[in-house]
Amino acid sequence: MAALLDDFYAVIPAGGIGSRLWPLSRADAPKFLHDLTGSGQTLLRDTWDRLEPIAGPDRIAVVTGRAHRAAVEKELPGIPDRNVFLESEPRDSAAAIGLAAAILHRREPNVVIGSFAADHVIRGRNAFYWAVEQAVAVARAGYICTIGIPPTEPSIGFGYIRKAGELTVEGAREAAIVERFVEKPDLATARTYYADRAYLWNAGMFISRADVLLEEIAASQPELHAGLLELAEAWDDRDRRGPAVDRIWPTITKIAIDYAVAEPAAEKGRLAVIPGHFDWDDVGDFASLAKLNSHGRKNDLAILGENARILSDASSGIVVTQTKRIISVIGVKDIVIVDTDDALLVTTSEHAQRVKGVVDALKGSGRGSVL
Amino acid sequence: MAALLDDFYAVIPAGGIGSRLWPLSRADAPKFLHDLTGSGQTLLRDTWDRLEPIAGPDRIAVVTGRAHRAAVEKELPGIPDRNVFLESEPRDSAAAIGLAAAILHRREPNVVIGSFAADHVIRGRNAFYWAVEQAVAVARAGYICTIGIPPTEPSIGFGYIRKAGELTVEGAREAAIVERFVEKPDLATARTYYADRAYLWNAGMFISRADVLLEEIAASQPELHAGLLELAEAWDDRDRRGPAVDRIWPTITKIAIDYAVAEPAAEKGRLAVIPGHFDWDDVGDFASLAKLNSHGRKNDLAILGENARILSDASSGIVVTQTKRIISVIGVKDIVIVDTDDALLVTTSEHAQRVKGVVDALKGSGRGSVL
Repeated sequence: MAALLDDFYAVIPAGGIGSRLWPLSRADAPKFLHDLTGSGQTLLRDTWDRLEPIAGPDRIAVVTGRAHRAAVEKELPGIPDRNVFLESEPRDSAAAIGLAAAILHRREPNVVIGSFAADHVIRGRNAFYWAVEQAVAVARAGYICTIGIPPTEPSIGFGYIRKAGELTVEGAREAAIVERFVEKPDLATARTYYADRAYLWNAGMFISRADVLLEEIAASQPELHAGLLELAEAWDDRDRRGPAVDRIWPTITKIAIDYAVAEPAAEKGRLAVIPGHFDWDDVGDFASLAKLNSHGRKNDLAILGENARILSDASSGIVVTQTKRIISVIGVKDIVIVDTDDALLVTTSEHAQRVKGVVDALKGSGRGSVL
Repeated sequence: MAALLDDFYAVIPAGGIGSRLWPLSRADAPKFLHDLTGSGQTLLRDTWDRLEPIAGPDRIAVVTGRAHRAAVEKELPGIPDRNVFLESEPRDSAAAIGLAAAILHRREPNVVIGSFAADHVIRGRNAFYWAVEQAVAVARAGYICTIGIPPTEPSIGFGYIRKAGELTVEGAREAAIVERFVEKPDLATARTYYADRAYLWNAGMFISRADVLLEEIAASQPELHAGLLELAEAWDDRDRRGPAVDRIWPTITKIAIDYAVAEPAAEKGRLAVIPGHFDWDDVGDFASLAKLNSHGRKNDLAILGENARILSDASSGIVVTQTKRIISVIGVKDIVIVDTDDALLVTTSEHAQRVKGVVDALKGSGRGSVL
């Protein structure tokens, strides 16, 4: 079971829109504000509820856009105002997590932070806590620690982490040093990774001391580091924060934390990994969403939507609806139907990755109002 | 080109809802009130425009339900009030066409009537006029005459007519006697019919003298005949018509004209046929609608809808929309998407016949408001 980790602060970057989940996810209703599992609450709230037992309600920070402030505070009524870190615009994950690290490090020099995306799905909480506890122990020892997921199939949708030797840290029985990060592979390569127990999925979770994270950013991205420190220095002064964000944030280097921190740290032998023995999914597209909601029954039609009124016959795949329309689905396999007030998507699991292309086409065609 | 046929009266039965075209066709918006060809006007109006050059605007009658009176008069502003024959409820085609025959026979004893469904699609008007002219000549000679379509494929969606010997009638070079009517066949049988030039599709068009038609009804369905005569006798007296309809119509025998007239007439050698060398389709389901609108290009996605905003990629089939929603269709083949305000249908051409099952399920489930 979960125990509070005293020196721990959870950070939830709540930024990405989730373009491949359009027309469900869109600028004013990003993926983390949706219930994608039928749990009855948003992914953001699920993430909060998962972290609260180990971090405590006063030690979870959310990094999000100014546009989402009201929605985030509505979803998380218990969040202290000082733990909502607002970006004036998205500047990628190194900036979001680095900003949280810089602010929290000023407040509490020895703090260990763990960043967990607002829009992933995790099932198996005790295994999650067991992994985080170990990762925090590794982080206290001065490593950047990630949690890697043992693959359950040869996925081409995720990046991979290759483990090297074991790492001996008290309280982290499964710790290992990371040899390298690998981008999303092709299917043949994914099959060799899947057969080789040294490869884990990169689930984008990073646990480290804030000072260690900032050191790594300073080494690889000195300008980004300087900007983050300047922001953090002004942050807790209400009069100075807003002007500092307006001035500095637009100049901040846009780079993913994988490139700014994880890969350089791996090269130095400073990146560790703990295997996460829980079900994890980033719900990157509708194929993933269909799989997640069909509970392994390949011939079922999964349905997501509070007011869904579906008549189906000999069909499989997923229907996601935000309307009250009667939806009749006859004789279509692996179908993806997403029904919203102003947009309708019909595709198949196989083509789910191509949704992003539609979003790009809409952007270019002056019909961006539905994005 | 078309010439006015002096003794001719066109009758348009406008009754069927077209359940297999749900959710497009429905009780308050039956198939004949839709534009299913992208012509910019309804099938009913297309039918009127096709008949007007040979019948004249004052000699086209429409038999329809009281519920559709306003819609019909809006579509056909030129129709004389006395040519709108209103049913209090649907009683099948022998009643509808027989009522028109009985009324018109009283007005004009030697009239030849031709009945043409309000919701079929015909392309090739000159060939149509050529067939009707010949059929009228055959009708004047005392036959019931139908127009049969030479099959262009081994369809299992239509009934067939088997020709017997040629019939010599002045002005009807292609006339033949009908040996028998055949119900919709299975595919193997349809193939033998298709290979045999003696079989034509039954397109449900009947041309005959009104008195001859009534004689046939009297012989096969004497109660129906008596009811129709009683109605006709009261019809042109405004005070008596309404009460007569209310009293008699609900008791009228429900039977298709094929059974009440055509088959018995064929047995007596009194049914003739003229081949119709024009494109004809009854647009019975969405597979037929897709084919009709793809203009033979099998890999195209056909689109029907005044305000359609479709983004498609690697898809074929048909999208019918009555909304202004953005509809994105990716990587689906032979798909059928019908998008209306309160109902959405997604199926394939192959399963288009099963739409009627959904309609029946909705009827049984208390959700009939969308029918």
